[in-house]
Amino acid sequence: MNNKKNKTHLLCVIILIGIAYMAKSQPPRGPFVVSPKINTDKSATFRYLAPNAKEVKLSGQFLKAPLAMTKDTAGIWSVTTEPIKPDIYPYSFQVDGVTAMDPANVAFFPNERFKASLVDVPADEPLVHALKDVPHGTVTYEYYPSVSGTTGSVVVYTPPGYEKERAKKYPVYYLISGTTDTEETWFKVGKTNLILDNLIAEGKAKPMIIVMPYGNIAARISEQTVGGTKPADPVVRDNADAVARAKAFEDDLLKNLLPYIEKNYRTINNRENRAIGGFSRGGGQTLRAVFSNMDKFAWVCSYSSFLSPTEMDNNFKHITADPAKTNKQLKLFWVSVGDEDFLYKGTLEFMDYLTAKKVNFKRFVNDGGHTWMNTKKYLNETAQLLFK
Amino acid sequence: MNNKKNKTHLLCVIILIGIAYMAKSQPPRGPFVVSPKINTDKSATFRYLAPNAKEVKLSGQFLKAPLAMTKDTAGIWSVTTEPIKPDIYPYSFQVDGVTAMDPANVAFFPNERFKASLVDVPADEPLVHALKDVPHGTVTYEYYPSVSGTTGSVVVYTPPGYEKERAKKYPVYYLISGTTDTEETWFKVGKTNLILDNLIAEGKAKPMIIVMPYGNIAARISEQTVGGTKPADPVVRDNADAVARAKAFEDDLLKNLLPYIEKNYRTINNRENRAIGGFSRGGGQTLRAVFSNMDKFAWVCSYSSFLSPTEMDNNFKHITADPAKTNKQLKLFWVSVGDEDFLYKGTLEFMDYLTAKKVNFKRFVNDGGHTWMNTKKYLNETAQLLFK
Repeated sequence: MNNKKNKTHLLCVIILIGIAYMAKSQPPRGPFVVSPKINTDKSATFRYLAPNAKEVKLSGQFLKAPLAMTKDTAGIWSVTTEPIKPDIYPYSFQVDGVTAMDPANVAFFPNERFKASLVDVPADEPLVHALKDVPHGTVTYEYYPSVSGTTGSVVVYTPPGYEKERAKKYPVYYLISGTTDTEETWFKVGKTNLILDNLIAEGKAKPMIIVMPYGNIAARISEQTVGGTKPADPVVRDNADAVARAKAFEDDLLKNLLPYIEKNYRTINNRENRAIGGFSRGGGQTLRAVFSNMDKFAWVCSYSSFLSPTEMDNNFKHITADPAKTNKQLKLFWVSVGDEDFLYKGTLEFMDYLTAKKVNFKRFVNDGGHTWMNTKKYLNETAQLLFK
Repeated sequence: MNNKKNKTHLLCVIILIGIAYMAKSQPPRGPFVVSPKINTDKSATFRYLAPNAKEVKLSGQFLKAPLAMTKDTAGIWSVTTEPIKPDIYPYSFQVDGVTAMDPANVAFFPNERFKASLVDVPADEPLVHALKDVPHGTVTYEYYPSVSGTTGSVVVYTPPGYEKERAKKYPVYYLISGTTDTEETWFKVGKTNLILDNLIAEGKAKPMIIVMPYGNIAARISEQTVGGTKPADPVVRDNADAVARAKAFEDDLLKNLLPYIEKNYRTINNRENRAIGGFSRGGGQTLRAVFSNMDKFAWVCSYSSFLSPTEMDNNFKHITADPAKTNKQLKLFWVSVGDEDFLYKGTLEFMDYLTAKKVNFKRFVNDGGHTWMNTKKYLNETAQLLFK
């Protein structure tokens, strides 16, 4: 009996090793799943292979609530949505309560805290980010010497013609992503390159270089020293930690990244040809960086972000003390927010504060939330104003 | 009573709308999770926040079988592995049977069929792909006019100094990824740029441009016409479908991509300065493209791939009919495979076939499977042989 048990055990071990071996060396198989598929009425069909799941739902920023999916005999769950307002939306599957990206979709949302896929619902009249048959710029990933001996990663857009017109120099827009986003998010989700390609082709934006840094510099320093890190608090935006993090970013931007860019790209190196902007945390970093360095930047864009009146009064009194001077220095001071944004109230307070202090700014309030759908819209608007 | 029910129902609806609204406008919250964390003994600690999950396991190509994880009071599941042989490995979490990427890790495996995160276990003596303090090349994403009026996406590595040394021209290596991989996989998983940066810094590789195309061209054409697509069969490698797919890729490579690269980069435009190579499906595409275009390429690398003797005899008789001629034409003909690779047997048959036909090739058989750990190794070996 014992012998038989041992034999059975040995057989199990052999089978398990076999399975593990196959898992190691065989590519994944199964029915072919196409997901998402955009239908002609702008609805979309999502599919997810999970024969053993009990419940699969679709979550997405185009939905008010998750949509139940149904399983076919092959174990593929699917759902077709109502027609969707054309745009790019993050989505994921909720598989028995577990969040999963869409395995059949390569379009993804680069982020340090969550994983989401992206669905692009095209419009009949191409959207601002549509891939059109126009001259295309390029997007370059490269390394630069960053803080404390670390190597930083940055993504850089150069406009069409940059490679060929060797005598030409360009203005630069430093464009920072949101809390827990990465240096890839403006490219992969914000479609910076396509928005600029389209605007430049229509003569609506000046050809410019766009530099997209990684924003969470403080975490990288901390990771080096304590072997771990924590992302910034997304809600409390003006405590000592938030200010110290913004300072670490600002130091890296001005002492490391900006000199690197100006050495390696054909940039026009004065404040009138440097813009800085950002979404969410990147907007806060933008405002702090520019108010501390008015000699460096003349164009400022704050997308879905603000500084508190307290922080303004404590740290940036010089901006409001002589508003005429500030108004002369800043060629553009853009502040925008959506009316469903969880930072809506704070941003409106910031706007009121600036108005009361007679600091000029371009106010843009639209519908929608703290989303990359809005962020793309803000980039599209502001890119047409920069360096003009 | 009914009135009370209605009120309760209304309250539920309001709460649900509230939750949906928060989901839309609030960034994700929860305990901060650091994952993975590499420990000093080369073990790694993986963490996953899932308070409601019943069972979470870690799967990874460094493991023989999935590892059970345990939950702490905050709902964070974790496990610390045995010491891991330094390398980059794909991994994922199995959460109640559902595959999920690591939400806390931005390093990911670009693929059309599955989603995996990447863990990089560094060695004391830096590995071939380590980020070192050496001059870095750049990686550029760009578009090119592809088949049937579509726009193709391609990733291009240019070596350190490319931007500055304007008079210099470079040889080009066309490097193709595997079945269901994308044009990003050689960069994000294969670390092409870092491997070349390191080899060039040590004087072991010639500075070269590396062009990394998207391999699944046939699917893109099919998607255009039938509104859907299916990936190539990863196992059956020489049926009519596989050959037609390889042909579609070859047409795009030679008629669209190669002319685009030679127009937009400073390339040396002759067969002695063009190499072609690929992993898995990309290896098959490589062999078919070169055997059909011996006037275009003089350097060939097949990583974990082969053509069957039948296909060789049917389609590429001219390669074996006059082996002396072939041997003179090909400056390098590299064939490599790991002894646990599911294509091991086929690749060995291909090697035996070439030997019998007196076609010279460089044979490289090592341990390991059909993995990107091996693929990086093959790139590191062959990059030292190219254009010399």
